[in-house]
Amino acid sequence: MTKKSILLIQETTTEQLQALKELAPEYELIKGWETDWEDISLESIEIIYGWTGQYSKELVENEKSHLKWAQGKAAGVDFLDLEKLKQKNILLTNGSGIHSVPIAESVFGILLAYARGIQKAVKDQQTKTWDQVDELMELHGKTIMIVGTGKIGVEVGRLAKAFNMKTIGVNRSGRDVEYMDQLIKQPELVDQVKQADIVINILPHTDKTHYFFNQDTFSQMKEGTLFVNVGRGPTVKTDDLIAALDNGQLAFAGLDVFETEPLPEESALWNREDVLITPHITGIAEQFKKRLFAIFEENLKAYLAEEKLPVNLIDYDQQY
Amino acid sequence: MTKKSILLIQETTTEQLQALKELAPEYELIKGWETDWEDISLESIEIIYGWTGQYSKELVENEKSHLKWAQGKAAGVDFLDLEKLKQKNILLTNGSGIHSVPIAESVFGILLAYARGIQKAVKDQQTKTWDQVDELMELHGKTIMIVGTGKIGVEVGRLAKAFNMKTIGVNRSGRDVEYMDQLIKQPELVDQVKQADIVINILPHTDKTHYFFNQDTFSQMKEGTLFVNVGRGPTVKTDDLIAALDNGQLAFAGLDVFETEPLPEESALWNREDVLITPHITGIAEQFKKRLFAIFEENLKAYLAEEKLPVNLIDYDQQY
Repeated sequence: MTKKSILLIQETTTEQLQALKELAPEYELIKGWETDWEDISLESIEIIYGWTGQYSKELVENEKSHLKWAQGKAAGVDFLDLEKLKQKNILLTNGSGIHSVPIAESVFGILLAYARGIQKAVKDQQTKTWDQVDELMELHGKTIMIVGTGKIGVEVGRLAKAFNMKTIGVNRSGRDVEYMDQLIKQPELVDQVKQADIVINILPHTDKTHYFFNQDTFSQMKEGTLFVNVGRGPTVKTDDLIAALDNGQLAFAGLDVFETEPLPEESALWNREDVLITPHITGIAEQFKKRLFAIFEENLKAYLAEEKLPVNLIDYDQQY
Repeated sequence: MTKKSILLIQETTTEQLQALKELAPEYELIKGWETDWEDISLESIEIIYGWTGQYSKELVENEKSHLKWAQGKAAGVDFLDLEKLKQKNILLTNGSGIHSVPIAESVFGILLAYARGIQKAVKDQQTKTWDQVDELMELHGKTIMIVGTGKIGVEVGRLAKAFNMKTIGVNRSGRDVEYMDQLIKQPELVDQVKQADIVINILPHTDKTHYFFNQDTFSQMKEGTLFVNVGRGPTVKTDDLIAALDNGQLAFAGLDVFETEPLPEESALWNREDVLITPHITGIAEQFKKRLFAIFEENLKAYLAEEKLPVNLIDYDQQY
């Protein structure tokens, strides 16, 4: 039998490689970023670092596969067949937590780009147009509804309080969360959403959140609401979002995620002045490599000691 | 002699007009926004509300003028001939304080537009380009130097602390200011500026601050510094700023004010990818009219009672 191995899909530094060698001398370390898939012995791979779903079929479904644990890179895991992973008893951990600071910063960058006339100014600069507007919005004093109160939601709430906003958190249980002035349960959103000037969607994509934002939700919003989606594309029905922009229910949509990514060229979203598109980049963290490795290292120590993985272990029944 | 009057340049609401009538029944109220200058009796004007420098020559220099007090609209007063106003014993109050929240919000909007790839995304959207970058900066953990620690500087400092930044304030005396981790005096800036990842210029334009940011200052900055100017255009030597961008001392400049405004079409700033231009709009406040009127009303009560004007009275010797 071949030596068991760790497939490193996320590139690691020399120091990180050395640390892994010392921690797990039994394992061969495969540098995925410089090795052809054809040269890798499938049966040897027991652990993957930095998975974003590559070779899923071979690694999960192939009978010869011995995959036992995959450390993902993103916070979301909806790109994987969780049922299959569960059946095969493969452990999955994600990169949750790395992304909360950068995503929360991006959320405020997107909101301020609209509120403070910066999105318009960037476009005007390209045509050398000096167009002073009469009025601009302030975030100060506004009510923000934060749908999804995990690590990202809490960080958005923390910054919202610093901008002197009123915060309403939305989660499944209605449990209290730091930095939220008020907490409501998901099913109450439709009745409560008219309180909000701004709605931030941070929902993961699960069976239960598919098309969570649709005509029924948008139609209950206050006229002129600002909507930002940094969750997952399929939690929003795009056609209904566009209708809500057209009828004025939404004044602005800042979208980082889409039902289809990359966003197809024929999408009506591209040309809209009331839409700001970022290409699924809000989660890009400075020092990302360092922070993901720290999660992997802590989990690897527990794995080798045959203990429960301590950081970001996915519960397949919850789908996140 | 004609009845004395208050020239309202800033448009007021019906309720505000009524309040003025009750407060100052002796005065005629001239609605500047619907009256031709030719129809206004120059000699009658004793007070101006919402001055941005219109008719300066007639109102200040003309011997027939009886102007005694002008309530300005902006925080800066450098568009006025302060020497002349002083000579004529004309009181001047400004709109300082209204602008601190909107300007601070704009400063972070501009910084995040660069750091989180939003400026680039807005441009890419126009060409339907889906371009995911590899790395993005975070404000978290950065050092921000705030040059000018009046109301705007303090508000910038407060938000910077919320973004988990280190704050260095710069003022003339080195006096302690809230939300600043460190305070330095203006002449120490050249030696200390290399500590900063980000420099925010909020200086008013006076004899002493003219071209405060020039080659000597820029050359001492850390390579890749981000620079934002929401103070006054002539406190920065534009040619030296461009040179600092060219040689990499500055990675980015967010500019709301310019040596000449509107920014001339031939300016080299327009076409630069590393410059974000906003057309002197960062100070535009939501509910601006309400907030400016509150300042005017408080000052007017004191003026009519022949007391010292309590809000934002300009000291001509300090030039702000």
